[in-house]
Amino acid sequence: MPLAPGKANIPLLAEVSKAELEPLILASVLLSLITVYLAAKLGGELCARINLPPVLGELVGGVLVGVSALHLIVFPEGAASESESLLIKLVELTAGLNPSAALAVFQGESEVISVLAELGVIILLFEIGLESDLKELIRVGPQAAVVAIIGVVAPFSAGTAGLIALFNVPTVPAVFAGAALTATSIGITAKVLAELQKLSSEEGQIIIGAAVLDDVLGIIVLAVVASLAKTGEIEIANVIYLVVGAAVFLVGAIFVGRLLSPFFVTLVDHLKTRGQVIVSSLVFAFLLAYIAATIQLEAILGAFAAGLILAETSKRKELEEQISPISDILVPVFFVSVGARTDISVLNPMDPSNRAGLIIASFLVIVAIIGKIVTGYAIIGQPGINRLAVGIGMIPRGEVGLVFAGVGSASGVLSESLEAAIIVMVILTTFLAPPFLRLIFSDDPSQASGEPALDKSDSVESSPEASS
Amino acid sequence: MPLAPGKANIPLLAEVSKAELEPLILASVLLSLITVYLAAKLGGELCARINLPPVLGELVGGVLVGVSALHLIVFPEGAASESESLLIKLVELTAGLNPSAALAVFQGESEVISVLAELGVIILLFEIGLESDLKELIRVGPQAAVVAIIGVVAPFSAGTAGLIALFNVPTVPAVFAGAALTATSIGITAKVLAELQKLSSEEGQIIIGAAVLDDVLGIIVLAVVASLAKTGEIEIANVIYLVVGAAVFLVGAIFVGRLLSPFFVTLVDHLKTRGQVIVSSLVFAFLLAYIAATIQLEAILGAFAAGLILAETSKRKELEEQISPISDILVPVFFVSVGARTDISVLNPMDPSNRAGLIIASFLVIVAIIGKIVTGYAIIGQPGINRLAVGIGMIPRGEVGLVFAGVGSASGVLSESLEAAIIVMVILTTFLAPPFLRLIFSDDPSQASGEPALDKSDSVESSPEASS
Repeated sequence: MPLAPGKANIPLLAEVSKAELEPLILASVLLSLITVYLAAKLGGELCARINLPPVLGELVGGVLVGVSALHLIVFPEGAASESESLLIKLVELTAGLNPSAALAVFQGESEVISVLAELGVIILLFEIGLESDLKELIRVGPQAAVVAIIGVVAPFSAGTAGLIALFNVPTVPAVFAGAALTATSIGITAKVLAELQKLSSEEGQIIIGAAVLDDVLGIIVLAVVASLAKTGEIEIANVIYLVVGAAVFLVGAIFVGRLLSPFFVTLVDHLKTRGQVIVSSLVFAFLLAYIAATIQLEAILGAFAAGLILAETSKRKELEEQISPISDILVPVFFVSVGARTDISVLNPMDPSNRAGLIIASFLVIVAIIGKIVTGYAIIGQPGINRLAVGIGMIPRGEVGLVFAGVGSASGVLSESLEAAIIVMVILTTFLAPPFLRLIFSDDPSQASGEPALDKSDSVESSPEASS
Repeated sequence: MPLAPGKANIPLLAEVSKAELEPLILASVLLSLITVYLAAKLGGELCARINLPPVLGELVGGVLVGVSALHLIVFPEGAASESESLLIKLVELTAGLNPSAALAVFQGESEVISVLAELGVIILLFEIGLESDLKELIRVGPQAAVVAIIGVVAPFSAGTAGLIALFNVPTVPAVFAGAALTATSIGITAKVLAELQKLSSEEGQIIIGAAVLDDVLGIIVLAVVASLAKTGEIEIANVIYLVVGAAVFLVGAIFVGRLLSPFFVTLVDHLKTRGQVIVSSLVFAFLLAYIAATIQLEAILGAFAAGLILAETSKRKELEEQISPISDILVPVFFVSVGARTDISVLNPMDPSNRAGLIIASFLVIVAIIGKIVTGYAIIGQPGINRLAVGIGMIPRGEVGLVFAGVGSASGVLSESLEAAIIVMVILTTFLAPPFLRLIFSDDPSQASGEPALDKSDSVESSPEASS
């Protein structure tokens, strides 16, 4: 459909106003995707050259085009109005978008990019599941559970107690900030591990298992503190519902999925039209993601479970090859969006209003890092593993941490400085963990205490490391 | 993010009402995609088994889940309200969507699916460009131009004159209906040709070239009749602008693109991160699509030009492999959406209000088919080609025809029966052309007049056919 030109407006289909905007929303989405890909590649390539994980570059590229700097990719919750989106201004200039229609086009474009980002992290977790080994994951399950539980308890208790004792923060906001310290961004950690080719290592599988459990724990913690902030009480029934639901879903999906997967393979083998493997697999993944979403879990958990199940079928290799380009074009939308939504102006110490927040933030960052690093040392009976790597893998809070900050902000329990401190903690843990993780994994553990290994070659082997 | 539960609503991020809906819109999109893929595969596989082109099955599958039948995939312009979307009802039932938020979720979901469908046809045309041969296309250019021009002039003049003479239709609506007869759906034709492995045949390249030109002519015709319907006059300046813009864009994009493509290949070879070929190529394709859209052409023309240019580089094979799964998951969204938007209730002769329209429709369908079939016989100096195949390849009106009907409906010049007649013509040409095209191509031309070849094997070779 041609774009509605400025002066010779052509009405399309029955509902004119809506249909007229369609081509303009499409044009804005095209421009957004171009921006996202350029930002992702620019950042990713720079990071790859200075020996940092490319995903960090995608996050930084997102910051560059987002609400903190260029204002090309902004979302309604971050921008006061459509006039703050430079991209929409560009569409107004080049495609004859009428300023009166700009708000509707901005909302439509943001909606589509948000959903593409969500689909991106769903595809990413599906791919991570596909590259994981269910048997190995079950084998390291007890270790992963220890890591996940200590990684929730340690930062939560230290953070809450510290805020009350050192900063005289009232109990409810202190509990909230402590809860925000418990999250782990499975997306960022998994992506870095995949880039380092460490997903299938023992440390990698412990981190993935713990991050998945942490995701479930995070949802429960969030529900608890949100109801605490709202009513002052904890709804026990809701917590039990969430715990039981998560357990039944994860165990049930994998159990039933493994039973049914031979039928799935037979069905796929009988299909004759193009794309039978990838389309059938995505129907399965989207279905589990939908079910996970409906029982108040996260959609990505369903996608991960689907990947795990299909990894055990004979279609694994073919599927890995076909999901790869889809992941290449959707996953950057997610990481660039996370970066674009992050307002780094709270990090500026020149702004006096930031200082109170920054002091609390320093405390939170220290607790956030130490509280996760100790988890690796809590693992019992695995003499050969790199304990520091496991702990560092759990550090990034990423988008999950931003959700905590958002919920706290919306419920009104957080003071401005405490909210800023949480955001600073999320930014620093998210951006610092990838380079540390790369450093610790490219380091030979036998020399880890002595010399840094910054000059290691680019291709990190996934061979198991023996500690001295 | 967990779904906002019915009773314990958790507000997320600053703008609560909007952010709360995000997970529900994502859930609706997931359910829509599952529905789209199931409909596409069900229809496609059935058609593949009865020797019809799978894309016809995707269209029919779309009709099944769309506004004509199950109401799972409906769009705001087709449904009176969100309560007509069975899919939204399903989300209300399973994911705790509050009926008061249903309209916003429905609009968000429709927006995303519409844009995914548009991205699907952009990817399809990029893929078609990639599989086309620019030199061959230039070589058959004169033939394609003859086919395109006659394919516009013949149905337009016969249709307009016939409506005035036989049905006493006033001039302006008759001109409008005649104009609707000129369109060709490049998407449907190209997809059928690709499925038959006939894209690179001489007939295939003539059809593709003519369909591209027809798309440009269609935009011009639409602009002319729309301004005629609006003001009673033809804006010459706008027509000249469109003609010059189209010519400059197509020639310029291909010329400049061929000059710059060596730099593109060098750049891609220097990139180190994942997905360098596919992401860089899509940036290029989306950029040309955006430019095409801004100068009032169609975005798909830009994507086609990008495919043509990249087909001449050394990256062609790698790119074809990587675009394939992306195409597999996005293109069905387009065809199922086209089917879902089509209201086939106008075809029901039992409904007395349809009869006047059906009589006019019979006339339009005959003109629509004959007006395009003659184009093949107008080609001069190509003794070996299958002229009937070229003509039949130009028959489907598809989504382009629906745009004409929509513009006419919105401008108020069409009577109800004439509008219904145009829609019937679009439906029949769209759904009849694929099986005819398959029949005529799987037929050996030397026996074409004698015996039908329904029992031919499934894999049609793309070897050139010699006429007897």
